[in-house]
Amino acid sequence: MERPRHQGMAKNTYMRWRLPLVCLLWEVAMIVLFGVFVRFSPEADAHWEEEKREMNLTSDLENDFYFRYPSFQDVHVMIFVGFGFLMTFLKRYGFGAVGFNFLLAAFGIQWALLMQGWFHSFKSGKILIGVENLINADFCVGSVCIAFGAILGKTSPIQLLIMTLFQVTLFAVNEYILLNLLHVKDAGGSMTIHTFGAYFGLTVTRILYRPNLEQSKDKQGSVYHSDLFAMIGTLYLWMYWPSFNSAISDHGDAQHRAAINTYCSLAACVLTTMAFSSMLQKKGKLDMVHIQNATLAGGVAVGTSAEMMLTPYGSLIVGFICGIVSTVGYVYLTPFLESRLHIQDTCGIHNLHAMPGLIGGIVGAITAAAATEDVYGKEGFIKAFDFTGAYQTRTPSIQGGFQAAGIVVSLLIAFAGGAIVGAILKLPIWGDAAAENCFEDDIYWEVPEDEESDAYHMHNPDKPASP
Amino acid sequence: MERPRHQGMAKNTYMRWRLPLVCLLWEVAMIVLFGVFVRFSPEADAHWEEEKREMNLTSDLENDFYFRYPSFQDVHVMIFVGFGFLMTFLKRYGFGAVGFNFLLAAFGIQWALLMQGWFHSFKSGKILIGVENLINADFCVGSVCIAFGAILGKTSPIQLLIMTLFQVTLFAVNEYILLNLLHVKDAGGSMTIHTFGAYFGLTVTRILYRPNLEQSKDKQGSVYHSDLFAMIGTLYLWMYWPSFNSAISDHGDAQHRAAINTYCSLAACVLTTMAFSSMLQKKGKLDMVHIQNATLAGGVAVGTSAEMMLTPYGSLIVGFICGIVSTVGYVYLTPFLESRLHIQDTCGIHNLHAMPGLIGGIVGAITAAAATEDVYGKEGFIKAFDFTGAYQTRTPSIQGGFQAAGIVVSLLIAFAGGAIVGAILKLPIWGDAAAENCFEDDIYWEVPEDEESDAYHMHNPDKPASP
Amino acid sequence: MERPRHQGMAKNTYMRWRLPLVCLLWEVAMIVLFGVFVRFSPEADAHWEEEKREMNLTSDLENDFYFRYPSFQDVHVMIFVGFGFLMTFLKRYGFGAVGFNFLLAAFGIQWALLMQGWFHSFKSGKILIGVENLINADFCVGSVCIAFGAILGKTSPIQLLIMTLFQVTLFAVNEYILLNLLHVKDAGGSMTIHTFGAYFGLTVTRILYRPNLEQSKDKQGSVYHSDLFAMIGTLYLWMYWPSFNSAISDHGDAQHRAAINTYCSLAACVLTTMAFSSMLQKKGKLDMVHIQNATLAGGVAVGTSAEMMLTPYGSLIVGFICGIVSTVGYVYLTPFLESRLHIQDTCGIHNLHAMPGLIGGIVGAITAAAATEDVYGKEGFIKAFDFTGAYQTRTPSIQGGFQAAGIVVSLLIAFAGGAIVGAILKLPIWGDAAAENCFEDDIYWEVPEDEESDAYHMHNPDKPASP
Repeated sequence: MERPRHQGMAKNTYMRWRLPLVCLLWEVAMIVLFGVFVRFSPEADAHWEEEKREMNLTSDLENDFYFRYPSFQDVHVMIFVGFGFLMTFLKRYGFGAVGFNFLLAAFGIQWALLMQGWFHSFKSGKILIGVENLINADFCVGSVCIAFGAILGKTSPIQLLIMTLFQVTLFAVNEYILLNLLHVKDAGGSMTIHTFGAYFGLTVTRILYRPNLEQSKDKQGSVYHSDLFAMIGTLYLWMYWPSFNSAISDHGDAQHRAAINTYCSLAACVLTTMAFSSMLQKKGKLDMVHIQNATLAGGVAVGTSAEMMLTPYGSLIVGFICGIVSTVGYVYLTPFLESRLHIQDTCGIHNLHAMPGLIGGIVGAITAAAATEDVYGKEGFIKAFDFTGAYQTRTPSIQGGFQAAGIVVSLLIAFAGGAIVGAILKLPIWGDAAAENCFEDDIYWEVPEDEESDAYHMHNPDKPASP
Repeated sequence: MERPRHQGMAKNTYMRWRLPLVCLLWEVAMIVLFGVFVRFSPEADAHWEEEKREMNLTSDLENDFYFRYPSFQDVHVMIFVGFGFLMTFLKRYGFGAVGFNFLLAAFGIQWALLMQGWFHSFKSGKILIGVENLINADFCVGSVCIAFGAILGKTSPIQLLIMTLFQVTLFAVNEYILLNLLHVKDAGGSMTIHTFGAYFGLTVTRILYRPNLEQSKDKQGSVYHSDLFAMIGTLYLWMYWPSFNSAISDHGDAQHRAAINTYCSLAACVLTTMAFSSMLQKKGKLDMVHIQNATLAGGVAVGTSAEMMLTPYGSLIVGFICGIVSTVGYVYLTPFLESRLHIQDTCGIHNLHAMPGLIGGIVGAITAAAATEDVYGKEGFIKAFDFTGAYQTRTPSIQGGFQAAGIVVSLLIAFAGGAIVGAILKLPIWGDAAAENCFEDDIYWEVPEDEESDAYHMHNPDKPASP
Repeated sequence: MERPRHQGMAKNTYMRWRLPLVCLLWEVAMIVLFGVFVRFSPEADAHWEEEKREMNLTSDLENDFYFRYPSFQDVHVMIFVGFGFLMTFLKRYGFGAVGFNFLLAAFGIQWALLMQGWFHSFKSGKILIGVENLINADFCVGSVCIAFGAILGKTSPIQLLIMTLFQVTLFAVNEYILLNLLHVKDAGGSMTIHTFGAYFGLTVTRILYRPNLEQSKDKQGSVYHSDLFAMIGTLYLWMYWPSFNSAISDHGDAQHRAAINTYCSLAACVLTTMAFSSMLQKKGKLDMVHIQNATLAGGVAVGTSAEMMLTPYGSLIVGFICGIVSTVGYVYLTPFLESRLHIQDTCGIHNLHAMPGLIGGIVGAITAAAATEDVYGKEGFIKAFDFTGAYQTRTPSIQGGFQAAGIVVSLLIAFAGGAIVGAILKLPIWGDAAAENCFEDDIYWEVPEDEESDAYHMHNPDKPASP
């Protein structure tokens, strides 16, 4: 079945040679670069038997694999099922949501292993990778999945791959500045992942502004079952967020604490989201968009501070506030951003990632500035903030200042990078769809002729049903 | 679209001020109580570096986090995705199933951390929480999710929150009596979670009996895809049940054994469920309701004994019996309970949790009574039943007696508590829907106008389709 | 509602006595055999306290449970949700896909614990089981799930149970020959699971060839939401495959390395799958069938070599090739196999498991043959290939030869076993459906009357819609 379409702004969305070319060439490049640079870290290398003896390790359990692999798998699920299904809420963009997310993340993790490797794991000419690198690569790609949320339904897979290439690069640069130059703590990525990813994506979607997007308005909503598919994504993000925020924290109490803080923040966030979702609708009914998204803001907002002594009640307060901010954002801010600032934000990442990310950065700065040896213990204090070597003399308040600087740097790189990448994506050669064909899988996917789509056509008399 | 409705028993289901008020006030109360009482356990506190030295621990791995966190995450998935999606089988109550489960569980875990904390982790005025507390809070909320199954589709979110508040409280009391006063073993909660939760829920639904519920009979069934969504819940419960029953067992062999016993019991249960599902239908066809539910009874029924030396074949026998009991219950007992005893049990929790829970309590009592030093080893025997201190002289047969007493106590508290809470929920101020509007998301949720619901309307000519 | 059907080849699909009889008798047999043979391994037995002292273990963490349980749970999810949902892509066979997979896997794991136990864990008359046995049982059943993919929609549940009984038996024999007699490495099962399972299933479906299958052609496709359900299966298989390939590797670096190699291979595979999916369609659109399946080929193809020093770039190369081979297979080979060789392969397991499995066996042989002490380290070399005892003198090239022999043995047993089992399944007493009723849940399941199926009927005027 070939559906007749309005061809008002006839755009060439034919992918047959362009998409394969990009995929194959880039994957060949990955192979070459991995061949030149990437090797196993000592803990994943067969020489580990000797390494173990040299390091006086008595048990195989001391391999970092056993500290981090379960968390890695949870993070992996968040990236591929969590983000992928969260974006299936649109009635006719489920394939694109889950499929393009799959494509960009699969490419992104490879490129992230290289980029982050050059900055952080480069030793005598080789990048040595272990399970922590896999987590960091997934984290990096998480910021791309966030940006994807802003442009969901409006871009071609080639544009998404190009955005991934640049965004991963910029992510690694920003992360290097924050973690290595500013010596900032950000284990759950409030700044590096959420603030950066969201403002990057919002800038890109601003540049790609489509004035005629209301032509595909009928496809911008959900249907009953697409909302349930999206809830799969929501719940996996929500449940595994404690793993996300604790995955690369220090072994021991820091991982333990990060999980507890995140658990608490997320729990509080659900209640305020439900409260405001009902309160802000005239009929007092709950809105699935809020439940799917704003309930997660609490996880974003403790991304920096979860491994610190935020304390359970501190986490509840952060979650409490973020559920409110995020829900209010969906009701009032998103329409405003679209109508006044021409920022078309399909998934509302401004409410789920940008604002809570900023809050997370600020909470992190305050929590760091308020740290005392009394609360952390003498050794715990040094370990928590890594006040060793060149940073031996840093005080909590200075650390708080650097944390705040990290927010500013993330924002600047996001805006500048988003503007440049947006301009590149605006070139008319990447195969994006016309405004009236946005949010429609049929453009890039073989879509089955099904009862549902037939029923759909019955109610859209301008599109004849297939026989 | 506003669907016209029969307004025979016009009930006020308007949530706009009531629901937000309850959510916000209670969350503020949580923050205050957490602020006063809740702190990190030593293993999650930054002072752990010193703690480690004092306790002579050589590795960060000795932190309880690494023993229990993977199991915690599995349990977390069971509560939010497992129970949430299991209840999406109704054709028009998917949002309520997954969304209200999300709400009550998110509130419940906070309140459970406090209630269980006061009883079990209270030290010098503070509740010290670690990963085991998170698991226990999830467990406690599990019993509320079970009770929710009985009243699914017939209650307002406010009623659910009130039930959660009281049920968590009673759960903590019952748990304290069983574990601390009777010194009973119940790691997987056959008694504390399933027996208590199910009979509590059944009592509540009995008190809330709706004589005119057949008015919403057309919505009490499933549709094809809602049955598949429910299977997501079923499978996650089934797969992760070994983690559930082993999550808080003693480190080492007990956790290992509990996982194996549960794995075996669940496998056997699937075969007898399939057998009886086919055998009890005239046409010999399998019924999704049985597959979705009765296959899980084997996990419930080894909840008490899984960490004991039940042995793999013992587990198979328990699973074998419970698949039969549970399936027969769905076919014969549920209709009987509804028509004769006026117990309207939407999800059939009597078959999935109540009867298997009782069996689990009894199996636990027998297994404990049959324990010998020969089977457990001298040290293993003492460790398995914690026959130390005041309980040094307890014999297996006495332990078996106490286990049996635990069942009785759980039942009594469930009945008494359920009656009181049911009476509270019957007050006409909580915003529940009229009988003809039960099992319908449209009452409390913004539901998308979709093809499917349009198609639905076409076949319900008394409800006009939207344009 | 009883739908009128064409009764041309009237077949008796009535399951009421046959299915229950098989399920109950076999489960009783399991209980008896478990009672006679199966006990806990020392690490799951209550005597472990003494065992620990004897073995001088200082920490409970040395229990194998903590090395393997998280991987076990991931594998468990792959078998039940991964395979189950992957096969829900058919528009009217979701119940059968996920339900029959559940049934055969639940029976299969019990039988596999026995069969593999007799071959590998038999000590003084008892099979001693621990977490590694659970993983191996899941692995064994994985090969049955693969074969199920070839005959999906065309067989009765009794046929599936019979196939499971025989295939598990043959699997254990083949595995014993490979691992114990040939001393071959195959931790992720490219040969024992994928090559064996796929060619076994393809032989069975060849024997069961149905010349009139085009009569149910209208049901052999997907609908929009069934494709999304299938993506749940795909993603869980894809995400957890690193756990699959590392689950039973040696503790420490081997598990770590296997996870990294698999992660890399799968990432590359996604890009070449997308490239060829677009390239091979005239309209350049992506095909969900490819994305759902070919993206996984990279995991299959490193099943043998993942724990070896394949290196990250080696893994990328393997994934790169397999994405291409598998996608090309779906486009050209599957139609050819069906029309010329009469192999009706519902899920295309030839492309997802058979060819990548063979490639995996070959890559494993080459990687083993190319191993040097330089690359592995002296101790690592011996440990990786277990060149101890009788195998002390084996060289890498000889090992490579034995690895290759393992492929041949797996193929021979698959063909011979598949032919015999296919012949047994062809007997006209097992209740399979007529050709025009294939791929239809209504034959073996109570299917809800739903809007969707009504809509379906509207477009199939020869089947009257229900009132």
